[in-house]
Amino acid sequence: MAEDRLLRYGVVAAAFLLIGACIALAVSPLPAGPGGEADRETIFQVSTIDALLQGVYDGDMTFDELATHGNLGIGCGDRLDGELIGVDGEWYLIRTDGRAYPVTGNATTPFAAVTFFDPDMTIAIDEPVNLTGLGRYLEAELPSKNLFYAIRMDGTFPRVVTRSVPIQEKPYPRLADVTANQTVFTFENVTGTAVGFWTPVLAEGINVPGYHLHFITSDRTAGGHLLDMTVTECSVQVDTTTNFTMALPASGDFRTVDLSGDLSDDLEIVE
Amino acid sequence: MAEDRLLRYGVVAAAFLLIGACIALAVSPLPAGPGGEADRETIFQVSTIDALLQGVYDGDMTFDELATHGNLGIGCGDRLDGELIGVDGEWYLIRTDGRAYPVTGNATTPFAAVTFFDPDMTIAIDEPVNLTGLGRYLEAELPSKNLFYAIRMDGTFPRVVTRSVPIQEKPYPRLADVTANQTVFTFENVTGTAVGFWTPVLAEGINVPGYHLHFITSDRTAGGHLLDMTVTECSVQVDTTTNFTMALPASGDFRTVDLSGDLSDDLEIVE
Repeated sequence: MAEDRLLRYGVVAAAFLLIGACIALAVSPLPAGPGGEADRETIFQVSTIDALLQGVYDGDMTFDELATHGNLGIGCGDRLDGELIGVDGEWYLIRTDGRAYPVTGNATTPFAAVTFFDPDMTIAIDEPVNLTGLGRYLEAELPSKNLFYAIRMDGTFPRVVTRSVPIQEKPYPRLADVTANQTVFTFENVTGTAVGFWTPVLAEGINVPGYHLHFITSDRTAGGHLLDMTVTECSVQVDTTTNFTMALPASGDFRTVDLSGDLSDDLEIVE
Repeated sequence: MAEDRLLRYGVVAAAFLLIGACIALAVSPLPAGPGGEADRETIFQVSTIDALLQGVYDGDMTFDELATHGNLGIGCGDRLDGELIGVDGEWYLIRTDGRAYPVTGNATTPFAAVTFFDPDMTIAIDEPVNLTGLGRYLEAELPSKNLFYAIRMDGTFPRVVTRSVPIQEKPYPRLADVTANQTVFTFENVTGTAVGFWTPVLAEGINVPGYHLHFITSDRTAGGHLLDMTVTECSVQVDTTTNFTMALPASGDFRTVDLSGDLSDDLEIVE
């Protein structure tokens, strides 16, 4: 009887162990390949910058779905309602009051780029530079001008200048006309995080060639699209990314917008 | 004692049931999204056409890996050794002798685009047209000029003209210089399959805007890059594709090639 009970407990214990192992197997990271490790080295993008420049502002993908493709990124809200920033899997829209609002999962974005951030290199900045100087400094360190790079900078910055744009109504104006009415915010001695991408010129028309960064304060209450900043001392983390995926809207204004032109003049005004 | 045994068997049975359920969970198809159903609606590409035009010919991805991203596609072999065509998950290189050779899985490609072919529409051709006329006819039926389309045509064609190019050695010449020495094949009353893509102009520099098709005979022995064809009666299957992924080479000549120029003149010569 004692032996039987021991055996019974043994069987129960073994069963629980096996159940545990099976659950672990079911939720374990997938192997490399689609959906697995390799996908972490992909920048995933919704729509194209040239569509946004021409007023394709209706949201096409929910933030819940966007978040399955990365834990860091930038973009904008439905109808341009705020500048999007994602850090550590937390997503915020910075609206024209300058405040950061956590996104609603079922709200949508018309344009965003995200990735799972796994830095490959850290570049130390130890002398005062503005955003242009910082850009030049980083660019010299990039291993190739033909790949994509995700960027993250955490620190205390003497000066950060950001902007946000107001929500739009149809008929939508071009983005260059919207940014003419942007609201600009200046932060001094602010602690926070700038994130975004360096895009190769091969993706011109699809995303913004060169740098495109957004900023959020360390208490995650304010920020915006980065216009300028002064950096005195900072470690810049860079994630070299060889794969790029874009999800193009199958419906709405995207279907008919003319994407054959060179909009680099528009982009110059907007950025 | 009998009750104890029953209980013991019950626990063992329950454990096996749970193990089975857990294994089923572990190997069950993934939900839509990365690695799941949505990936079938992706065109997956290795490198860019502008890199190929400038002589980046060293293979970067094995055909075994390429085949995990689609069952239909086109491209070329390592060092331009043959025109690649994939139909129904079977992959061939058509070399300058005009013959189709099944690919070796561990051989590589410097440039290819593939997808899982799930046709969304069938367009009937019922009057004689050449490739230009066919192109115009199909283009009028595409639901948007801003998406990607995979194309498959099976039939008997009065005339098909293809080409292949010879394997190259370093220092690699530009592709426009290689195609100046291409071998051209003319087939008459040939039964076979043409497959390829219609690429939107938004991907200029990345792939070939408009049509890019390769051909293989129904006995899978000959074919090439499609230069022209006469179609009298044919059903053209079209797979509308909203997602596009490119895998950029992290090493080799791709890292340093200048991809900032407009190579549309080169493309005109090559295609």
